[in-house]
Amino acid sequence: MKSLKIFLLLSFIASILTAAETLEQKALKQRLEPIPADIQVLLSYISDKNDPISDDKIALGKKLYFDPRLSKSGLISCNTCHNLGMGGVDGVETSIGHKWTMNPNHLNAPTVYNSVFSKVQLWDGRVSHLEIQAQAPIQSEAEMAASSELVVARITSIPEYVADFKKIYGNDVNITFERIASIIGVFERTLVTPSLYDDFLNGDDKALSKKQKEGFELFLQKGCTKCHYGIALGGTMQPFQVAAKYKFIELGDFRGDKYGMVKTPTLRNIVETAPYFHNGQIWNLKEAAQEMGSIQLGIKISDKEAEKIIEFLHALTGRKPIITYPILPLSTDKTPKPDAD
Amino acid sequence: MKSLKIFLLLSFIASILTAAETLEQKALKQRLEPIPADIQVLLSYISDKNDPISDDKIALGKKLYFDPRLSKSGLISCNTCHNLGMGGVDGVETSIGHKWTMNPNHLNAPTVYNSVFSKVQLWDGRVSHLEIQAQAPIQSEAEMAASSELVVARITSIPEYVADFKKIYGNDVNITFERIASIIGVFERTLVTPSLYDDFLNGDDKALSKKQKEGFELFLQKGCTKCHYGIALGGTMQPFQVAAKYKFIELGDFRGDKYGMVKTPTLRNIVETAPYFHNGQIWNLKEAAQEMGSIQLGIKISDKEAEKIIEFLHALTGRKPIITYPILPLSTDKTPKPDAD
Repeated sequence: MKSLKIFLLLSFIASILTAAETLEQKALKQRLEPIPADIQVLLSYISDKNDPISDDKIALGKKLYFDPRLSKSGLISCNTCHNLGMGGVDGVETSIGHKWTMNPNHLNAPTVYNSVFSKVQLWDGRVSHLEIQAQAPIQSEAEMAASSELVVARITSIPEYVADFKKIYGNDVNITFERIASIIGVFERTLVTPSLYDDFLNGDDKALSKKQKEGFELFLQKGCTKCHYGIALGGTMQPFQVAAKYKFIELGDFRGDKYGMVKTPTLRNIVETAPYFHNGQIWNLKEAAQEMGSIQLGIKISDKEAEKIIEFLHALTGRKPIITYPILPLSTDKTPKPDAD
Repeated sequence: MKSLKIFLLLSFIASILTAAETLEQKALKQRLEPIPADIQVLLSYISDKNDPISDDKIALGKKLYFDPRLSKSGLISCNTCHNLGMGGVDGVETSIGHKWTMNPNHLNAPTVYNSVFSKVQLWDGRVSHLEIQAQAPIQSEAEMAASSELVVARITSIPEYVADFKKIYGNDVNITFERIASIIGVFERTLVTPSLYDDFLNGDDKALSKKQKEGFELFLQKGCTKCHYGIALGGTMQPFQVAAKYKFIELGDFRGDKYGMVKTPTLRNIVETAPYFHNGQIWNLKEAAQEMGSIQLGIKISDKEAEKIIEFLHALTGRKPIITYPILPLSTDKTPKPDAD
């Protein structure tokens, strides 16, 4: 009898202790972090000390981001596949580039929004800096197909661009391909989208609805944060379960990096970035969540549970920066002509 | 002696009378017209009485203009070929569309800016309303390649678009392909770019530099306004001189409409819209001006004269509307998927 009393007492204390752990506390324990509400703190997160953010760099980077003359054909810009009006993606399964070429690995374009918070870039995580990432699609034959020499020749033939670079880096600036890509990276660093989820983790308990909180609890309970953690809720390398049986997708040829690791996509704005997975094989977010539970966590997520989790994922849709569409500087007679071949 | 005196007197009077005719007056005589400075007058010019401009229509039209889901592939928007950051064009000789298809007539994309002032649309002038023009590229196999049924299915599957249409046209609105294109037309009507040239014709004598005034005089003297007149400085059908000998261009297969007539392009923002002519065969504006003098007017325009005229043409570069890049509404499970084939 006495032992039962003690057991009940201990259970009661335990339940109080459990209840005392708030959702925010549980989230922090599982390595989740909000986008800092303080703009100075945020800037220290997103700015690269070697090339700090400035208004002039953002303005120039934005022009370059939208400029299709960075592609061989003169038709494809960064924004073509990472459309800032469409969650930072192109909304197709496999990205299509120069000469209507499908990505050879059937890779789906990841969102540019919040990519600054990813520890690695590209699906095989081979670079960690946005400034270096930006070099890859410009040069890829299946994407923008421009040689570094062509890009430099185009940009340096346009007086307004040259003046922009000089204003930022001084009259002796050497406008290299790396520097051009780097300025695009600076602009991309500013593409962060704070959401109701961040408001909640930053202290506004009312930012999430009751249903979203339930979904959040479930998200934590199920272990989704094993891969989707940090500010990005993703953006690190995780084992790619190629041996596992996928229900909804054909895996394709892509095998991640040489260790069989693949970059976990961010869950921010996930509602806006269908289709899902590295090869865009799943359009439906519920199916995507269930597939990940099964493959990555070895658990079954029921329809009802998946729906609750998706309620929470809606809270990750962020407030987008207001982008004024840039008026691009004029080409000159010296600007290498577009080449669609 | 007396007759000489009378002759000199008459010459003197004549010279005063000639001098008294201002550049503005000459311009008006040659059917040139500025974009009205008065916003109410301007609105009466650009608004269609059957479907008057409103803020809600402009906002919806802008979203549709930038939405690549109006194309079969989900990759090509109106803005792809009529890029508002690049003078309203794509900057390539021949527009490239679905499956990387060149326009079969090697046609160059005309600027969307100020197209509201053109009396006819499309190179063969086969439609006069922007609202109807917008239907053509969406459906063209070499452009956006979407059937009208597909466009309607896409748009009506997206709740935010449906709500936008209902807000404008009432709950009973029938969202037809024609109505979708029509809303794009309403947005396009607002893409007008008043310039220093307009300021000058609207009474600000200092708006043009001395060199630009000289170029303007020459522009009028040479007879450029025979085709380039009205607010658009173009935009009507003129005989297409297919028999004439072109110096700079290969004419190609295009022969205008059934009467051998072709739409004269607007000269507004001409500095921004290279390459020139219906097939984009000339990149250099001086060569373009000289070719037109030779072919259309049967006169030789010297290098020096062409340079002066181009000084004037720079005054036609207009102030662009500030476009906030639209955040596009979300697709749903019912939205027909993009199809790159």
